[in-house]
Amino acid sequence: MSDLQQDEGAPVQRLTDKSQPRQSLSSWLIGRPLPTADAPHQTIGKRVGLAVFASDALSSTAYATQEILFILAGAGTAAFVYAFPISIVIVLLLAIVTLSYEQIIHAYPGGGGAYIVARDNLGELPAQVAGASLLTDYILTVAVSISAGVAQITSAFPDLYDFRVEIAVGLVLFMMVVNLRGVRESGAAFAIPSYFFLVMMAGTVLIGMIRYAAGTLGQVVEPPPMETVHTMQAVSAFLILHAFASGTTALTGVEAISNGITAFKEPRSRNAGITLIWMSAILGFLFLGITFLSGQIGAVPSEMETVISQLGRTVFGGRNAMYLILIAATMVILVMAANTSFAGFPRLSALLAIDGFLPRQLAFRGSRLVYSRGIVALALIACLLIVVFQASVTGLIPLYAIGVFLCFTLSQGGMARRWWKSGRVAPGQEIKERGSTLRYESGWRTKMFVNGFGAVCTTVVTLVFVVTKFRDGAWLVLVLIPVMVITFSAIHRHYRRLAGRLSLDDFAEPPRIARHRVIMPISGVHQGTLAGLRYAMALSDDVTAIHICLDPEEAERVQRKWDLWGKGVRLVILDSPYRLMIEPVLHYVEEIAAKRQPNEIITIVVPQFVPKRWWHNALHAQTATWLRLALLFKPGIVVTDVPYQVE
Amino acid sequence: MSDLQQDEGAPVQRLTDKSQPRQSLSSWLIGRPLPTADAPHQTIGKRVGLAVFASDALSSTAYATQEILFILAGAGTAAFVYAFPISIVIVLLLAIVTLSYEQIIHAYPGGGGAYIVARDNLGELPAQVAGASLLTDYILTVAVSISAGVAQITSAFPDLYDFRVEIAVGLVLFMMVVNLRGVRESGAAFAIPSYFFLVMMAGTVLIGMIRYAAGTLGQVVEPPPMETVHTMQAVSAFLILHAFASGTTALTGVEAISNGITAFKEPRSRNAGITLIWMSAILGFLFLGITFLSGQIGAVPSEMETVISQLGRTVFGGRNAMYLILIAATMVILVMAANTSFAGFPRLSALLAIDGFLPRQLAFRGSRLVYSRGIVALALIACLLIVVFQASVTGLIPLYAIGVFLCFTLSQGGMARRWWKSGRVAPGQEIKERGSTLRYESGWRTKMFVNGFGAVCTTVVTLVFVVTKFRDGAWLVLVLIPVMVITFSAIHRHYRRLAGRLSLDDFAEPPRIARHRVIMPISGVHQGTLAGLRYAMALSDDVTAIHICLDPEEAERVQRKWDLWGKGVRLVILDSPYRLMIEPVLHYVEEIAAKRQPNEIITIVVPQFVPKRWWHNALHAQTATWLRLALLFKPGIVVTDVPYQVE
Repeated sequence: MSDLQQDEGAPVQRLTDKSQPRQSLSSWLIGRPLPTADAPHQTIGKRVGLAVFASDALSSTAYATQEILFILAGAGTAAFVYAFPISIVIVLLLAIVTLSYEQIIHAYPGGGGAYIVARDNLGELPAQVAGASLLTDYILTVAVSISAGVAQITSAFPDLYDFRVEIAVGLVLFMMVVNLRGVRESGAAFAIPSYFFLVMMAGTVLIGMIRYAAGTLGQVVEPPPMETVHTMQAVSAFLILHAFASGTTALTGVEAISNGITAFKEPRSRNAGITLIWMSAILGFLFLGITFLSGQIGAVPSEMETVISQLGRTVFGGRNAMYLILIAATMVILVMAANTSFAGFPRLSALLAIDGFLPRQLAFRGSRLVYSRGIVALALIACLLIVVFQASVTGLIPLYAIGVFLCFTLSQGGMARRWWKSGRVAPGQEIKERGSTLRYESGWRTKMFVNGFGAVCTTVVTLVFVVTKFRDGAWLVLVLIPVMVITFSAIHRHYRRLAGRLSLDDFAEPPRIARHRVIMPISGVHQGTLAGLRYAMALSDDVTAIHICLDPEEAERVQRKWDLWGKGVRLVILDSPYRLMIEPVLHYVEEIAAKRQPNEIITIVVPQFVPKRWWHNALHAQTATWLRLALLFKPGIVVTDVPYQVE
Repeated sequence: MSDLQQDEGAPVQRLTDKSQPRQSLSSWLIGRPLPTADAPHQTIGKRVGLAVFASDALSSTAYATQEILFILAGAGTAAFVYAFPISIVIVLLLAIVTLSYEQIIHAYPGGGGAYIVARDNLGELPAQVAGASLLTDYILTVAVSISAGVAQITSAFPDLYDFRVEIAVGLVLFMMVVNLRGVRESGAAFAIPSYFFLVMMAGTVLIGMIRYAAGTLGQVVEPPPMETVHTMQAVSAFLILHAFASGTTALTGVEAISNGITAFKEPRSRNAGITLIWMSAILGFLFLGITFLSGQIGAVPSEMETVISQLGRTVFGGRNAMYLILIAATMVILVMAANTSFAGFPRLSALLAIDGFLPRQLAFRGSRLVYSRGIVALALIACLLIVVFQASVTGLIPLYAIGVFLCFTLSQGGMARRWWKSGRVAPGQEIKERGSTLRYESGWRTKMFVNGFGAVCTTVVTLVFVVTKFRDGAWLVLVLIPVMVITFSAIHRHYRRLAGRLSLDDFAEPPRIARHRVIMPISGVHQGTLAGLRYAMALSDDVTAIHICLDPEEAERVQRKWDLWGKGVRLVILDSPYRLMIEPVLHYVEEIAAKRQPNEIITIVVPQFVPKRWWHNALHAQTATWLRLALLFKPGIVVTDVPYQVE
């Protein structure tokens, strides 16, 4: 257990702490702590991979169509005919983005999130913008997906509508606890609900198509009251672009696979790439199908009932078992989608913390080997958003997806630059970058064109988004991202400056301490004071006791007792005319410190009795604590509390 | 300024802290700090004394009549005829209580509040009950008087009714600030409003009587909607007693003079006694007059308009200038009454703190020489009550006055016992008690009878109060007072036990410290670590550094650097499989401590860098702080943070 190594320098002993972590409320809630050696590593195939990574992307079909209709409703139901053409454009955009990401997956087999691609190819500022956008969007994914999931529940059970905020917050907190326990991104837990949703939703679309072809589909019975976010207006290019921008939320989650390539079985990149293409194909099919059928049945956008619910009860002919299963599947996939953020946000914030852009504590693994602080932060911010926006998907949507498209743009712009760089590398040569290895690629021009075209398209979409949704709330994100970037930089500067100040390069050691003065403030003479005095005299021969005098009678009593018990140590009685306790000690110490030599150190020994119960502290003036805080900022002065435990 | 005394024992130096307290938000709000030497002492005559001490008692005429009517209204307006007979009984009770207090004033020329009388004559438990009752009633005086004052304002200006809680809280906070500045209980500030109210109220009653005699008084025009606190019932003994109990609030404040005898000019007791009798006579006259006239004009109890307001506008013939002046005078006297609590509560809580029944901090005088903490505590609790009861006098009344009557009973019971004791003292002999001097008194039997009869009467009233008002809220006070007494005892036990543990009687000093082991946890090797090491080596030759290893690579780096910079000091590398930082250090220290000799001490030196801005601390794991808290409770172990200031 212990082995003593004695090599050239200081003696070094290696021990292992044998203690087991103790039981507590938190270990009951999130499970017993896991040792570091238990960190898991397992890989998954394409089929499970699709289930694990597709939930975020596929779940957006649950609200994308509805959000298009919400905007078009501004020009009346007649404008709904534009929904299907808009969807076709969005699916084309999806194809472009998918192609671009397929290339990223092959270039970054170690995981190529927007932050890493931007960092390695575009520099620090774009990387920070990507980081800020991603963090924002992870939070919004939780808020939007959970709100959309709760909207499914309240569509099926309208009585629950008044409790939507409570249900949503409860779900987020539940997911927080589950993730603090540590969810393995694997296996049946993910595959069953994902495929269940896929089968149900694809089935709904197919049955709907068949009934449409047979002419038996009909219209929504008792549609909910239609709502729109804007006052009535004519159909305009702005309105169409606005609806398009809302619909692009269908693309959120497409990037998930590129972040998690390492989870796939070898050949990793190939498996991940194929999974990506499958995912996009399914997403495109479902989105187009839902939008088409919604138009046919005359579904209307409403906070009271989702379009999926209207479609479901029209296709299945009422609120029957099949309808309820569809709603349940949609609800579950939305919760799963939120769960992917609980994996992504903590991992990204840890990455940013390791790079020194966020507080270091975010990089510490908690008792269950997950980044607990990141998980808790994500849950709390998402809950705040849900409460502020009253769990309204339509309220949250304008904030969402800007970050996603900024990341699409940055990662594809980064990739375009990377291909250009790879064209400059001599064949056979390898350049190691932080996130990947750069080699010459023969088809670099084509690849650069694909990523470049993708970057241009997503840039255009981002601009459309900003312009059309600015007033609806997008401005908030446009303020937030720069603020986050500035914060990242400030934190980074702090860590860098600190490292410089603490560095031992060119460090000349100061002379050994030659004189040690000890000052001990005392409020009275009792056993605690004598314990302090005993310690002070062990430190140095140069000890001075100070008594702050508020009451002359008390001071005389202290002086008499000190004569008896003070072991001849010098006592200073400091009159404090304004009844202050801390300031006179500070001034006295400062005067002494001003006259000090460089190799002289001052220690303030504060006798402090420690009551048996912490709340007994409320019964005592915490002079010692305040004194320590006040002296913390004075160089060359050390404050030592000598605790004296009562009982 | 400094004079060195060198007498038999240790050298003693006396200094005075010359620094002026610095400007701050608080010095702007409550004024510049005052030196202790400025503590005032001035005495007052009978006329000013009446003004200073009568506000609390006289102000209760503003609501006592109305509270009787509120209860009687439960049996319909016909029951209002009982109001005047009830008032006569209350005035008789007032006469008895006044006689009793006149005797207390002569027996306790140093001030004889219920707490002191009960403490000296009945023992610790009754004294604590008196203390708890008094504190409760001081708080209720503020809440009731301010609520009643605001009710006067909203009677004159009904539009302000919706803002009554805000106005009341604002007034309490304003009075808190005024009292934190330090109000001298003297002079015109008190005399003018008190006599102003006296003149206005006596004038109103007299004019009312004259108009009644002339037959021109008439009835209230447009009375407010009548309200009652209970459902309709027949006139019963219970109802009459209930109304009586509500009316006894007229007696609150009678005890004020007995608490403040020291403020009077010599012959103190005589002056105070005469003032008391004058005050009671005026109080009785006003109370009877208001109740009589209210019955004649058909005033009804209502939260919307006070009885005083109804009386005023009937006597003066409308909401004219005279009416407004009466309302203003009533409002001001009620605020003055609340202000007496701001003098009484902090003084009593300081007295209890000095006796060790409340936290010691309550006995410290603030920067303006007042007991600031008591003032703030009173204001905050009173505000809480006002908010909870929505500034309703009728809601607060059931809680009020129980405490007052408990105190009447205890102080008079105590006095009866004192006369009995004084009958046992030999003539010419003197027995010094804590609050007064006991002598033989010739008429002790009569005096004992007077106080004893007073005690019996107030006991009966207290019981009537408890029985009739139990369900209205009196139960709360009956729960609160025992809880407070238990808290007082717990605090007292803590201080007594602590004093015993710290006492130097029979204290055998432990041997001088012979061995000093120093343990220094390090997270890395940098300038801060070396500053810590330099300090550790100044303390002892026996220094051990510990590095908690979460990451083997990091541990190797630390070991390499330590070889270079560690000055040959032993390094222990402690593997922490559960990624804990604090616990492994604790276990290691505990193991070392277990093997320690009695004359051996262990110091944990924790290098801690101090960032330039306090919020930078959020960017660092506060390991040092947690370690210090965890080790605080281990005897014989001292934790020293060696601060290393960055910039």
